Amino acid sequence: MKGSQLECVKCGRSFPLYLVNTRCQDCNEPLEVRYDLKSIPRDWFKTLKKGCIFERYAPFYPYLKIDPALSLGEGQTSLLQSNQINEKIGLKDLFFKNETQNPTWTFKDRGTAFSVQNASSLGYRRLGTLSSGNMGASVAAFGSRARMDTFILLKANAPKEKIDALTVYGAKAIQVSGNYGEAYYRALEIGKAFDIYISISDDPMRIEGYKSLAFEVYEQLECEAPDYVALPVGSGGLCRGILKGFEELHEAGFIHKVPRFIGVQTQGCSPTVDAYEKGNDQIEYFEDALTLDHVLENPYPASGNQVIRKIRSNEGVLLKVSNKEILEAELLLAKEGIFAQPASATALAGLVRAVERGLVPVDAQVVTVVTGSGLKYPPVLKEFDLPVISTSLDELAPTVEALIK
Amino acid sequence: MKGSQLECVKCGRSFPLYLVNTRCQDCNEPLEVRYDLKSIPRDWFKTLKKGCIFERYAPFYPYLKIDPALSLGEGQTSLLQSNQINEKIGLKDLFFKNETQNPTWTFKDRGTAFSVQNASSLGYRRLGTLSSGNMGASVAAFGSRARMDTFILLKANAPKEKIDALTVYGAKAIQVSGNYGEAYYRALEIGKAFDIYISISDDPMRIEGYKSLAFEVYEQLECEAPDYVALPVGSGGLCRGILKGFEELHEAGFIHKVPRFIGVQTQGCSPTVDAYEKGNDQIEYFEDALTLDHVLENPYPASGNQVIRKIRSNEGVLLKVSNKEILEAELLLAKEGIFAQPASATALAGLVRAVERGLVPVDAQVVTVVTGSGLKYPPVLKEFDLPVISTSLDELAPTVEALIK
Repeated sequence: MKGSQLECVKCGRSFPLYLVNTRCQDCNEPLEVRYDLKSIPRDWFKTLKKGCIFERYAPFYPYLKIDPALSLGEGQTSLLQSNQINEKIGLKDLFFKNETQNPTWTFKDRGTAFSVQNASSLGYRRLGTLSSGNMGASVAAFGSRARMDTFILLKANAPKEKIDALTVYGAKAIQVSGNYGEAYYRALEIGKAFDIYISISDDPMRIEGYKSLAFEVYEQLECEAPDYVALPVGSGGLCRGILKGFEELHEAGFIHKVPRFIGVQTQGCSPTVDAYEKGNDQIEYFEDALTLDHVLENPYPASGNQVIRKIRSNEGVLLKVSNKEILEAELLLAKEGIFAQPASATALAGLVRAVERGLVPVDAQVVTVVTGSGLKYPPVLKEFDLPVISTSLDELAPTVEALIK
Repeated sequence: MKGSQLECVKCGRSFPLYLVNTRCQDCNEPLEVRYDLKSIPRDWFKTLKKGCIFERYAPFYPYLKIDPALSLGEGQTSLLQSNQINEKIGLKDLFFKNETQNPTWTFKDRGTAFSVQNASSLGYRRLGTLSSGNMGASVAAFGSRARMDTFILLKANAPKEKIDALTVYGAKAIQVSGNYGEAYYRALEIGKAFDIYISISDDPMRIEGYKSLAFEVYEQLECEAPDYVALPVGSGGLCRGILKGFEELHEAGFIHKVPRFIGVQTQGCSPTVDAYEKGNDQIEYFEDALTLDHVLENPYPASGNQVIRKIRSNEGVLLKVSNKEILEAELLLAKEGIFAQPASATALAGLVRAVERGLVPVDAQVVTVVTGSGLKYPPVLKEFDLPVISTSLDELAPTVEALIK
């Protein structure tokens, strides 16, 4: 959309759209893209174009030249209606947005895809990020697709099998010893020094990518918004993005209310929830973070303060759950046919708590975001101590008979 | 569609549609569903319904009551246009059908989904299969989704992490010692004895599920068929299914030619290619089968003879490739942004050979099926011996500078 600009999420100071890897010079808070949304025609969702998600939802996106060749088929994931968990937890109308169907099997692809569109339109030929996990794999894949020279910075102790899953795409994996928090700022310096577009968690264009999930849910619910959205909160970018999407649908007059958000962290790393519960505006560094699959193990999330501000104004809730609750939720999800990574099950675990506490009415319509595939971190399966039966061909029939419910 | 029935793929003898786990009593060859396709309106693809793929393509499916609650959002995967490999191998117009975006991250979900629709409509409450890999995971997921008591029979030496990825869905995993070839027949016996719907590789309804891939490609290519389809051949079910889809589009008058098929096996297990190359009609048991990721390690494929018949009448080609060629193809695919399992890369490796031999003209339009996610079998990454760079925060800038192309 023409006339768009970047604005500080806290003070509203404006910056030109072409700035990359920049925070507000006054607040040190992230920037985001602002539009004039009043000009979108009322019947616009009836005339959606084919193509990648950014062509499809073009009026809600900055005026970039979208290059379909950079797309890996991100987004357009399933919205599954629960047929078991809903009864179990006493919610009538529960859906799962299955982000494991993305090209690198996590929601990160929506954000990376739009970062890369932006990088390409600004003429960058180099791409980078700081991540040992899902974001690294996503940036590696999209970087190679765009024929960009791609650099992934990792913790010194990242396991070889995780690194292989990045370098297989052709990206250069660089393990950096020293303080990983400082590595964030060093990555931005390297970006400026060598013309590398650093697609970090609070890149405004990454947030723009995530908001496409809200537009899809709106379409999949026959042009309605749900009452609640439950999702895991790590860096906070996904929460900001999806909420922004619904707020824009509201501002543009497509929906009458913005869903309330239920943001969930784990007890092993809960800097955002802790600050929120204390009534603070500023997150504090979370010491000795340790989570089941390391996905939500971000001790000082870049969008933490903004998530607190947004959840408060949204009248949503931030809460944390235990590893035991997460593992129980993961098994619940699997029994409905979705094998998710523990970070994704965190959202369902939080929803279960929120329903128990009466924070979500039983007749509410809820969408839970399943952020990534269970195949991303198989070691966690050991936690379940799942049974196996052994038998011989001759004993097969009686074995099966004994197992029949 | 009304009036549909089962027919032997070899002799054409007809059987009623409700028969389950049955082969032709004369030929011992698989059955498949036959329709009257002349009655589909010419403009039918312009009026596609929303919903799961079997609602979407309803006129090409048997007259079952489709239950959307059994769907896990299978199909509707991306068709990506190559922007690098095409140049590298000298093909102008190359596409990848990315089946890794399915709910359990392989093409198997299309077939399982339709098997389960059939099982449910016939009143079955129990489901089973014989598989240590992708099919087992798919049947486990869909069985749980359908609230069916689900039994997965596995080889005695199946590794625990593969089994955990089935049992996490709530399926009962049974390791069976003894001859695995005989286990196929025992599984069918168990099915009959205990009313378990056995969703095996040549279940006619599984083949029906796979044919949806052809309809999607037809739609994604703006209502045209490609000139060639390249795909890996294990049991042969996928090859039969996709080819059947294009043949039905042809019979119903939507396309003027059926694409030629390039079916590819690995040198580690090539029973179908070997019989084809010898001019035989019958496959022979392949001794000591061993493949990179065990996915194509089927020594006596149930649909082998039928694949040979179909590829001959299609004027297609069956060929085999080495592990070295497969690994090269896997890296090529990853550099274009798709991390596939080796079995999937087998198709691209075969296409490369076919182009080199002049079997495929350089101006042909080719669709290669990427059957499953690279996350399914990470140990193969070790084969690549991928590089990692280590540095410190202070040395980061010179390290990156030295790496810049």
